[in-house]
Amino acid sequence: MATPRGFSFVGGEVGDWRILGCDVVIGEPLPTASRLDIVEALIEKPPAGAAWSLRGVTSNERYVTRNERAQLVVKQPALGRAEASHAALIPIGKSSAWWELTQDERRELFEERSKHIAIGLRYLPAVARRLHHCRDLGEPFDFLTWFEYPPEHSEAFEELVRELRRSDEWKYVDREIDIRVVREGR
Amino acid sequence: MATPRGFSFVGGEVGDWRILGCDVVIGEPLPTASRLDIVEALIEKPPAGAAWSLRGVTSNERYVTRNERAQLVVKQPALGRAEASHAALIPIGKSSAWWELTQDERRELFEERSKHIAIGLRYLPAVARRLHHCRDLGEPFDFLTWFEYPPEHSEAFEELVRELRRSDEWKYVDREIDIRVVREGR
Repeated sequence: MATPRGFSFVGGEVGDWRILGCDVVIGEPLPTASRLDIVEALIEKPPAGAAWSLRGVTSNERYVTRNERAQLVVKQPALGRAEASHAALIPIGKSSAWWELTQDERRELFEERSKHIAIGLRYLPAVARRLHHCRDLGEPFDFLTWFEYPPEHSEAFEELVRELRRSDEWKYVDREIDIRVVREGR
Repeated sequence: MATPRGFSFVGGEVGDWRILGCDVVIGEPLPTASRLDIVEALIEKPPAGAAWSLRGVTSNERYVTRNERAQLVVKQPALGRAEASHAALIPIGKSSAWWELTQDERRELFEERSKHIAIGLRYLPAVARRLHHCRDLGEPFDFLTWFEYPPEHSEAFEELVRELRRSDEWKYVDREIDIRVVREGR
């Protein structure tokens, strides 16, 4: 299956990113791994030595409006900045109650009540991010979000995830792992 | 990959549905096949003798509001009615211009301007349908819609697809095949 826009995050013993911590926020944990490798493809089988492999695809935005995108485009930095040596991979699963909501109800929870986009905007351009969708791939999570930030913005990043976890939207999260990594080269 | 909600539509020489016609509405054609087999799984490789295999997953709704869903739930019939011996598989691809629109712009085109849901509602309960998403699977189409209807509603079904193809939303369709089948058993 030649899927464009596919990414695989492989936890194991190799990869450019050293794993500093892997905290269970809610739900089942992941097996222990020391390094994270990011592969720009949907790999069919985890490589030998991998503890886990999580896959997702970037896709069209599901909630952002034209006005919101205009604000994001101006402020959001690219991934791969030399100074952004710290990163987080946050896999999330949402409950069936979330997925049974209609589009207007999910949007209302996501932004009008939880300010997901507005909160994220306040942490730009410190934090770069890429969202990967995986629910329709049959993966164990629904989303994988990858964040990169310079170490001086570590406390700002903690505040960002705290704010999002206090929101009404987060009441629909039934699995979340918070994996922190630092870039080290292979 | 154990994907729930996955379906494969296989055009070849076997299957419960005999292919009556396979019209190119816009874009590249599909190879010729005489029968359609529907498999309730995402098959990795087309079986021997298959001319084509198209795969998709059912997923959460992307545009329907609570009020619209309430109207749909009351009127929409189940698939598999004994009298619904006629069916259509309509694979569709949308242009990059569509996918670059924001959610509010796509919703506006989909319903406020094109009345996609309102038009569909007028043909219920004659026509049963199931929508499969496939863009994020790396498939050649973005959507596969499967429709079933009794032969006495054939003209109504033609009017339904004509109406949808006249809409502003359809200006973003860059590939569409209209495959008509009749149930015959194996």
